[in-house]
Formats: sequence, structure tokens, C-alpha cells
Amino acid sequence: MTENIRIDGARLWNSIMEMAEIGATANGGSHRLTLSDEDKIGRDLFAKWCADAGLSMSVDEMGDMFARRRGSDDSLAPVGIGSHLDTQPFGGKFDGVFGVLAGLEVVRTLNDHAVTTATPLEVVNWTNEEGARFAPAMLASGVYGGVFDLDWAQSRVAVDTGATVLDELKRIGYHGQQSARQHDFSAFFECHIEQGPILDSEGISVGVVDAAQGFRWYDISFEGFAQHTGSTPMVGRRNALLGMAKIVQAVDDIAHEHAPLARGTVGGQVEVAPGSRNIIPGRVNFTVDMRHPSADTLAAMDASLREVCDQVAADIGLSLALEQISYTAPVAFDERCVAAVKGACERLGMSHTYITSGAGHDACFVANIVPTTMLFAPCKDGISHHESESAEPEDLEAVCNVLLHAVLDVAGTAS
Amino acid sequence: MTENIRIDGARLWNSIMEMAEIGATANGGSHRLTLSDEDKIGRDLFAKWCADAGLSMSVDEMGDMFARRRGSDDSLAPVGIGSHLDTQPFGGKFDGVFGVLAGLEVVRTLNDHAVTTATPLEVVNWTNEEGARFAPAMLASGVYGGVFDLDWAQSRVAVDTGATVLDELKRIGYHGQQSARQHDFSAFFECHIEQGPILDSEGISVGVVDAAQGFRWYDISFEGFAQHTGSTPMVGRRNALLGMAKIVQAVDDIAHEHAPLARGTVGGQVEVAPGSRNIIPGRVNFTVDMRHPSADTLAAMDASLREVCDQVAADIGLSLALEQISYTAPVAFDERCVAAVKGACERLGMSHTYITSGAGHDACFVANIVPTTMLFAPCKDGISHHESESAEPEDLEAVCNVLLHAVLDVAGTAS
Repeated sequence: MTENIRIDGARLWNSIMEMAEIGATANGGSHRLTLSDEDKIGRDLFAKWCADAGLSMSVDEMGDMFARRRGSDDSLAPVGIGSHLDTQPFGGKFDGVFGVLAGLEVVRTLNDHAVTTATPLEVVNWTNEEGARFAPAMLASGVYGGVFDLDWAQSRVAVDTGATVLDELKRIGYHGQQSARQHDFSAFFECHIEQGPILDSEGISVGVVDAAQGFRWYDISFEGFAQHTGSTPMVGRRNALLGMAKIVQAVDDIAHEHAPLARGTVGGQVEVAPGSRNIIPGRVNFTVDMRHPSADTLAAMDASLREVCDQVAADIGLSLALEQISYTAPVAFDERCVAAVKGACERLGMSHTYITSGAGHDACFVANIVPTTMLFAPCKDGISHHESESAEPEDLEAVCNVLLHAVLDVAGTAS
Repeated sequence: MTENIRIDGARLWNSIMEMAEIGATANGGSHRLTLSDEDKIGRDLFAKWCADAGLSMSVDEMGDMFARRRGSDDSLAPVGIGSHLDTQPFGGKFDGVFGVLAGLEVVRTLNDHAVTTATPLEVVNWTNEEGARFAPAMLASGVYGGVFDLDWAQSRVAVDTGATVLDELKRIGYHGQQSARQHDFSAFFECHIEQGPILDSEGISVGVVDAAQGFRWYDISFEGFAQHTGSTPMVGRRNALLGMAKIVQAVDDIAHEHAPLARGTVGGQVEVAPGSRNIIPGRVNFTVDMRHPSADTLAAMDASLREVCDQVAADIGLSLALEQISYTAPVAFDERCVAAVKGACERLGMSHTYITSGAGHDACFVANIVPTTMLFAPCKDGISHHESESAEPEDLEAVCNVLLHAVLDVAGTAS
């Protein structure tokens, strides 16, 4: 019946390359910011492809696009497949785009083979996953997942022009009438490049994503006392940068204590004052990012961080300000969807491994409402959010074939 | 004879306060940058006071001012007493000014008591000690001490107007004819606020400065690999900021290993890239400042720093660039001058301690040519280079009295 159907890897690749031409950058990436002119052109191209494939398009209040293929029982809730078409500034060709066009390739393949699924299928483009032009990231999927209020989301302001999301939706003709909060799916699948090095370094074709890490973000500052580096004895110094150094080390240690799934990083947003080589730093501001797929473990990591910050402040005589500025709960993806992906890997003989998503994705918010999972493809050296982001055609083809068969499993075929 | 002579503490204090009015800042400091209009007004006031005290003024090619009081044998090389009248931007009232006006107060006191010293005395104002408007610091005393070339020094450029030192010397009328490299002294004394917390915290009146620390300055960068904080496992990260953190700690440790005289600091000039909270820092640039009064110990500290940098780079997989951008040799001040200061402290019953200068001073370069020492006065909390810099009248009076009697010892009195 359907077990020997395979997607057309060249067609998938060519579609990705054609989309990448919209906002193409000199260094081989794409610059297609949310609700920009380039985003409109990209959306229009996607809509044309969907129409060519016989899909019917609907758009919701957040500009989310749903391209529907009828099921044999069209009253059933559709299986959604998608991701996002917007990119980071001077971003890569694959982040997001692969997930949308993999969905399109699935329906094109089913068309080729005249296979009708029991449930309808919908290929989805979520608005503003990147959060670069409008903060925060995963804005529209967050509205759908009940994380963000619709009015608040529509009133987010572009960093370049100051226009709101709603302004820009209307300007480019993608302010739809459907509710952005209510849309039935029986399941949702998102393919994505891993954005990490595990699959690439281990030579594994498919990441079966069974969870997404929760994360906590912190803003921390230490205030000490700025003094002359030469005339101030070592004993009694209140060196704010020394305090930060101890936290950089401690955050790394905390993550290693909860290996292999924990992550802990002092990121690049660091301010040290005063900025003079012969003055002991009197103030530092820095950020901490801690992640774990278990909320309990993440809470334990949080407690460790707070304890070490208090201890360092006391030891060095610094005043500490620590604020957790955001908390994103861990996601356990749907067992049946994960099993469908794993089963498809096995049937197709694809090398695969369970993997936890370390980054946020639209699927993480969709999972609040719908049985959901993700499939990761290797990307070279784990690099993303960069023009040099790279993936191999055969890897994307492999993941898309697994997607096809997982979707067939979940959506069912007309008997 | 002279043993009961004391300086006039109120006159000294009032002179300092009057000088501080030139370029006075709203927050109680002074802003009298090198060769600015304010510097000219300050120099003119100093010259007037010197003339009022019967001194004859000469000026050299670097604008250094020498106010001479005849000795009973005027063919002898004079004893110099001085420091600098320029200030840091929005700096304090005392840094430098105290040392010049303490010299003036000594000659005023000798005038009051009709005491003629055997050698002449000269009160000196060195040009551009601070190095804020024209880098580097201690520019004119460096020319005198053979550290800087005259033409190079005169061609240094102002950060505000782009004018050269020579331009500005001519503009404000302080480009003299005397050689800036040759000027005979039999000895040189510089009084200064400590710019550190030792005397203030220990309640000691006079710092007998027997040495000045040598220091080494480094520019260091680590280059690692910028990756996503969530999707990148802890193992295999090439986190440049973690490398820096280990060096911040190591520099602190190295200084403690050579306690109590060593100093080691990663200063405030820190750059971390990319500046994003969810990207592992791929590059850091930072500076290291290490000091010790023994050249051998400082060399051992240098070796330790290089070793730990190499080790950290190897451990984390970072590429290291380490450049020592300057080396200032330690100074051992003249034994006879130091003994004269210590002897004066004892005769006057002033609490005192040997102290090593951690900062650079004009005296450090003058010491290359002339038997030299310094006297430190306590300053509140060790704060300097700030409008809140503060010293007590009685402390400055005490140090100036010690200066007077040390100078009388070295200069001799007409029998």
C-alpha cells in the first residue's frame, strides 16, 4: 500500500533553495524578517505552491497560514505539519523553512501517489518564530498555545520601523479572520534542523525529539567598589568581576552536575564598569541561561545558582541583584506522536536517536494544546542563526521520509 | 635651630582649596586637564604664589615649571620638591596638587623663619602626569627620566581637540626654553595622597615610600566557538567567557600567592562577543594588570600567567592571543632620601609606615636620574581619580611637616 512511498528529495531541496532566494544574502544565507516585504514574497510563494498542490489556504488573526488537504473523513481534526518561514537577520536557509516545506513535500508526495489520508492534513507557517524583528520569539504559536494574549501579541513593535504586528499583518495582506487561538488539530509534527552538534557529530540521520528543555533566564548584577589596581591591596578588594568569574564557573559546574541533559551558560550580554584597565571593576551586569527537560531538576539548578550567588556576594562583599526574567516550562512531547516517528525510522531503516530540544520551537507551544512532536535533521557543526547554516540534501530527505510515514501512521489512510 | 619650625597647615590647606576652585566641578572635584585653559589659569596662580614667595621661575620645553629658592651655596644642585597640577577628568582636589603646594608651603615656611638652606630648593610642577588628555601618563617626567623621546612626547595628541602637546604648550604660553631632559637636582621629594586604603584604614599619618611597584600590562583574547546555549551540550563547548573566568580567578590567585605586595587584576576593559544571552560567547578580549616591587617576582607572576593561559586555552579548546603591552620596572627609592623621611617622622613623633607605591608617579621616572623618594598622606577610603577624593587638613599638615624636615636634612642649613 503506502509503505514503499518516498518523498522526492530533489523537489524538497529545490523548494528550499528557491525560498532561500527571497532575501538571499551575499554570504549564502537568507534575511527574511517577520512581516517584512521579503516575508510577504516568501508567503506568497508558499501560497502559490500550496494552491498548485490543490490545498486550500486559510489565514488567522496572527497571520498564521494553514494549507489544507482534504481527508477521506474531512470532519476529523487535521494533522498539522509545519514550522516557520521567517528568518533571523542574515540567518540561514534551513531554520524553519525546512519544517514548512517538508510538510508541503509530504502532501505533494501523497498527491503523486494518489493517497488520501483519513484525517485532513494542514501545512502550517507560524508567524514570527524568530522574535528578531518583533520580540518575543514564537509569538503566534505562543498565542495559539495560550502563552501570550492576542492583543498583546498584535501590539508588539518592530525594532526597525516601530510598526506593530497588526499594522504589518495588514500592510502585507496577511491579517486573516480565523481565530489565532482556536484551531483544531489531531496531532502536530514539526521538522527542524537540530541547531546543535549531536546528530552531525555522531552521524545520525534523524533526531526523535521526545522533549524540549525548560529554561530559566536571569539578569544578575554585582556591585563592589571601583579602586586603583595598583594601590589597593588584594585583601579587602570588592572586585565585581571576580564575583562574576566565580558565577561563570559555577554555572558551568551546575550544568555538569546534572549531565548530560542540563545546560548552563553565562551568555554574551556582559557589561563591566568602569571600563579602565587600571581600575578594579566596581560593577558587572551579566545574564545566565539554564536549561533542563525536568522542571524539578531545573528548580534544583535554580536553587544552586541562587545559593552560589549569595555566597560569592558575601565572600567578596558585593551587593547582588538577581532577577529571573523568564521561565519556560519543559515540554514532554506526545508519546504516540514520538512513537510514530520512532516507528517510521525503524521501518525505513533510518539511524535515529532520542534527542531533547535545547532551543525553543513553535512545537513547544503547540504542544500545550495538541499531541505534538518534532523531528530533527543534522546541520553542519550544529551552526544555525548564521548565513553559514548548512544541511545535506540526503539528511533532509531522510527526515522528510520519516515525517511522511509518521504522518501516514497518525493520520491513517482511507481503506 | 630649625627643629621646632612647623609649616602653616591652614595656609597649605587654603592654597589647595584655592587651586581646586580652578576647574571646580559641581560635585566638589576639579577638572583641570593638561594644557587646557584651566591648566593655564592654575599654572598662572602657582607662578604668582611663587613670585610672591620670592622664587624665580623657569620653564622647560615640556612646560615643566621650576620655582627656585636660592641656597647659601647657589652653585649646588637644588633639592626638588613637587608633583603635578593637572587633574583627571572630574578628578579630585588633592591628587598632584598636594605635592606641588606642599613644596610651596615648605619654602613659605622657610621664608617665615628666615632659614636659608645650603642647597637651593626648587618647587616643581611636572606637565601631564595624568595622561587623560594626552596619553601616556607621566609624560614630561618620563622625558626627564629618559623614558620618552622629547619629540615623541611633544607630538602627543589631545583626545578632545587633536592639538599636540607642543601646540598647546605654545597656546597657553608655557613652552619654555630650558632642556626638558637635563636639569640638575641633588635630590627630589614628592608628596602625594596614597590613592589606596592602607594609611586611612590603619590610622597612620605618613607613608614612607621606599619603593614603587613595577607593573606589566597585558591584552589577552580567547577565541572559541559561538553556539546556541540550549542545543549545544556542555561537553565539547569552546566557551571563551569560561576561559576568561578562569583567568580572572587565576590572576587573583597569583597575586595572593605573592602576598602582601603583589597585585593582580583583570580590569574593566572587557569585551564579550557575540552579545546575546542565548549564545555561548565565542570571543572575549580583556586586560590584565600585575604589579610587584621586585622585578624577579613580577617575572615569576608573568610566567604563571602565561602558563595558566596556555593551560586554559588547551583545556577548553580556545585560541589564545596574549600580548604584554607595557612593562614598567620597579623602583627602589633612594636610601638616603627614605632615611631622611623616616628620620623626620621619628623626630616629629609622627606615626608612619613603609609603603610601596602601587600607582605610577612622576617621582618614579625622576628616580632614574636623581636620588628620590615620596611621602604619602592618607586619603579617605583610598579613593582617588574621583570628585569625592578627600583628605584631612591635619594629615596633609603632618606629611608636609615631615617633608620640611626631610628637606632640611638633605638640603642642609647655612651654619
